[in-house]
Amino acid sequence: MKIALDAMGGDFAPQAAVAGAVLAAEQLAGKATIVLIGQEEAVRPLLLEHGSAADALEFVPASQVIDMGEHPAKAFQQKQDSSIAVGYKLLHSGAVDAFCSAGNTGAMLVGAVFTVKAVTGVLRPAIANFVPKLNDGFGILLDVGANAECKPEMLEQFGELGSLYAQYVLGIERPKVGLMNLGEEEGKGTPLTQAAHQLLKVNPHIHFVGNIEGRDLFNDKADVIVCDGFTGNILLKMAESIYDMMDDKKIHDPFFDKFNYEAVGGSPILGINDNAIIGHGRSTPFAISNMLLQGYHMAQSGIADQIKDTFKS
Amino acid sequence: MKIALDAMGGDFAPQAAVAGAVLAAEQLAGKATIVLIGQEEAVRPLLLEHGSAADALEFVPASQVIDMGEHPAKAFQQKQDSSIAVGYKLLHSGAVDAFCSAGNTGAMLVGAVFTVKAVTGVLRPAIANFVPKLNDGFGILLDVGANAECKPEMLEQFGELGSLYAQYVLGIERPKVGLMNLGEEEGKGTPLTQAAHQLLKVNPHIHFVGNIEGRDLFNDKADVIVCDGFTGNILLKMAESIYDMMDDKKIHDPFFDKFNYEAVGGSPILGINDNAIIGHGRSTPFAISNMLLQGYHMAQSGIADQIKDTFKS
Repeated sequence: MKIALDAMGGDFAPQAAVAGAVLAAEQLAGKATIVLIGQEEAVRPLLLEHGSAADALEFVPASQVIDMGEHPAKAFQQKQDSSIAVGYKLLHSGAVDAFCSAGNTGAMLVGAVFTVKAVTGVLRPAIANFVPKLNDGFGILLDVGANAECKPEMLEQFGELGSLYAQYVLGIERPKVGLMNLGEEEGKGTPLTQAAHQLLKVNPHIHFVGNIEGRDLFNDKADVIVCDGFTGNILLKMAESIYDMMDDKKIHDPFFDKFNYEAVGGSPILGINDNAIIGHGRSTPFAISNMLLQGYHMAQSGIADQIKDTFKS
Repeated sequence: MKIALDAMGGDFAPQAAVAGAVLAAEQLAGKATIVLIGQEEAVRPLLLEHGSAADALEFVPASQVIDMGEHPAKAFQQKQDSSIAVGYKLLHSGAVDAFCSAGNTGAMLVGAVFTVKAVTGVLRPAIANFVPKLNDGFGILLDVGANAECKPEMLEQFGELGSLYAQYVLGIERPKVGLMNLGEEEGKGTPLTQAAHQLLKVNPHIHFVGNIEGRDLFNDKADVIVCDGFTGNILLKMAESIYDMMDDKKIHDPFFDKFNYEAVGGSPILGINDNAIIGHGRSTPFAISNMLLQGYHMAQSGIADQIKDTFKS
């Protein structure tokens, strides 16, 4: 199995990317190979620095870089030899089994939709994010930003996509799906959440537990929390800020430490025909390494095929 | 000055309400009188229990109670001798200067709109909530639930209402107004936030600082954070759950302790012709007392008149 990494993606690339790849390669030895993609002149010297620890890594050159501030669609189309474009080409051709990048989020999304494409039947792929649970483990929240505005049918599908991910990647047997709303009662919310509630309620593929509220994000009411990308993005960034403020204040606790994005790695794009993961812009080597491990588990789980099977019918 | 309290409102009423009124009366001695409104048979014995400490309190009987689970509009109209309806009658007649309740939020909103009414020119009143700031003091977030769905013009007005509150009640000289969004760039977000951004940008009454993100809730980018009631409600409840979890884990810190809703009291309804504050359902005596102090400061500030003046033009 091969897991590709955009060596040029992220605020601390390529150093953090290469160091993260070395860390992940140690842990995946005998199970998967890490493939670094990036500018030869930037990456080669770093591989030499890491010495024999870097021997297990493969390298694929890509002459261009999509910067964090570039317009995603424009940059992706104009820079066909960028590390992100090359990564998706490798993924689409089957040369690698997962592609991870802490680079331009928009370009990662555009690349996913242009190359490996959305699964037939999926209206819009979503970005999922891990949510630490107070009692144990993680749940997932989606969408966290791919779709600022959603239709009810999209929220319904996010419930299905998230449920499959929770089941096949997180190993939760019958994931509980909750709809983020401003009240628990069925009639509460906006026209969007009211309509989505009705769709989710009768969807036979999921175990819908109804509306949940902002206070339920971290409890056990739902393993999969569905919302539009606007709400999800704001919640996610707020949760990250809570961790940052606690860390600044040297407040540490096993539960709150799970808010640290570094511990989980990245956010999978769900609803596409392959495995792609977007990392945090400020990813450290530890975060990069965890994103690669996550890419390995995702590829191993066969989640993309499960999604294709579900939406075929 | 007189500040009225719904003695029957909240999960721990009437005990917590009466105890909170006694606490507030001590602090407001010589400045304001607390007027308790409720069922005679429930409140009188509690006043006796508090002995001479309750002497400063006034009491107005109301034979009915609107329960937490009742349909707001129906209950308000059918129970014209409920503590909430009587409270609004006193407020509207000028017999009291502010009305506070930890009871049915919806009925408090309905009562506000039916009796004291929205200020002429205000499309929809909003519920504002305090947001602890990392460096110092509090900012405010609105709407947090009065309007699940909003039009751009409503968000613009929330910016004005919040700005006036921040200025006249919180004493912030030139409040910075931020629009909650999923990215800082002007074009980001939903059609709603994109359109609201354009309106806020050219509004001469406020100091608009642009879009802010979920991570900016607690920093100094904005004193007044504008969002639709769906987003605000979810953010608020999530923040409350963070405090609850920290409290359970006995993690205490001067900043994070400001997340405790008890410390601030309640959420003012802004954009109506008088001073009304909604308390948390599970308000303790300490929370009730702080809500009454807040009612006093709000009445003292003349904020309702400031809002009327601004929207007149």
